[in-house]
Amino acid sequence: MKIPRVTTITLGVSDLNESTEFYKSVLGDEPNTSYDGVTFIELPGAWISLYPLENLAKDISPDVPTNQREFSGVTLAHNAQSREDVISIIERARSAGARVVKEPQETFWGGFSGYFADPDGYYWEIAWGPMFEFTENGDMKFKEDA
Amino acid sequence: MKIPRVTTITLGVSDLNESTEFYKSVLGDEPNTSYDGVTFIELPGAWISLYPLENLAKDISPDVPTNQREFSGVTLAHNAQSREDVISIIERARSAGARVVKEPQETFWGGFSGYFADPDGYYWEIAWGPMFEFTENGDMKFKEDA
Repeated sequence: MKIPRVTTITLGVSDLNESTEFYKSVLGDEPNTSYDGVTFIELPGAWISLYPLENLAKDISPDVPTNQREFSGVTLAHNAQSREDVISIIERARSAGARVVKEPQETFWGGFSGYFADPDGYYWEIAWGPMFEFTENGDMKFKEDA
Repeated sequence: MKIPRVTTITLGVSDLNESTEFYKSVLGDEPNTSYDGVTFIELPGAWISLYPLENLAKDISPDVPTNQREFSGVTLAHNAQSREDVISIIERARSAGARVVKEPQETFWGGFSGYFADPDGYYWEIAWGPMFEFTENGDMKFKEDA
């Protein structure tokens, strides 16, 4: 099992188009907007995902508030190599005292994922998806035939 | 100038020791605690830094609230190759409509840094530090003689 490094940082945004344009100007990269309702900025090291705040909160759990006063709006994701790795990492987090807020499960986008909260309530998603693969140095990329 | 990818994700924590132990258990990596008051987890891709929430807020600006209801508690950093790159990237963000909350300036730790807020108020630090260098694929590391 690879070290659960951060592969994606998701920012819960209020206006997806505005944020996409903003990050396009700042990061000088071409955001991938071919997925409905989410923007991926495929930076080296860790991607930035932009996702409406309300949808992000609901993806974690129906109990997560959909406003920035009660939810940081940010999630860190480790995209794992397999469903088994998702389960192992969530179990490792649980053993370390994490609150598991979403048990590993199939997702609506064809993946498999769970979430835990760290001691300060910051959320981590551990996810596997059939459309992702990894470069030699561990960065994530879309499968070319996906 | 390199793309301003994320090199460090800083989580503002309430108990630095507890969070350091937690992440040591979950990430299976050896956190670097040799710097006073901050823990660096030198993951591939993007580091995780743990820093007391109050100190993190103050590092951004005296106007940033020191509680998680009014401040997400998370910052994303791009560690740049030079002071000049810090200034260029902050200017690029300003042109894109970012609110610059800390103009680029010398820091107490011997570096040079500024902060901007994105359209949803998420904070980015653009920083240069004499103790950092970069691997061939752009990941950050401590200089060996630092």
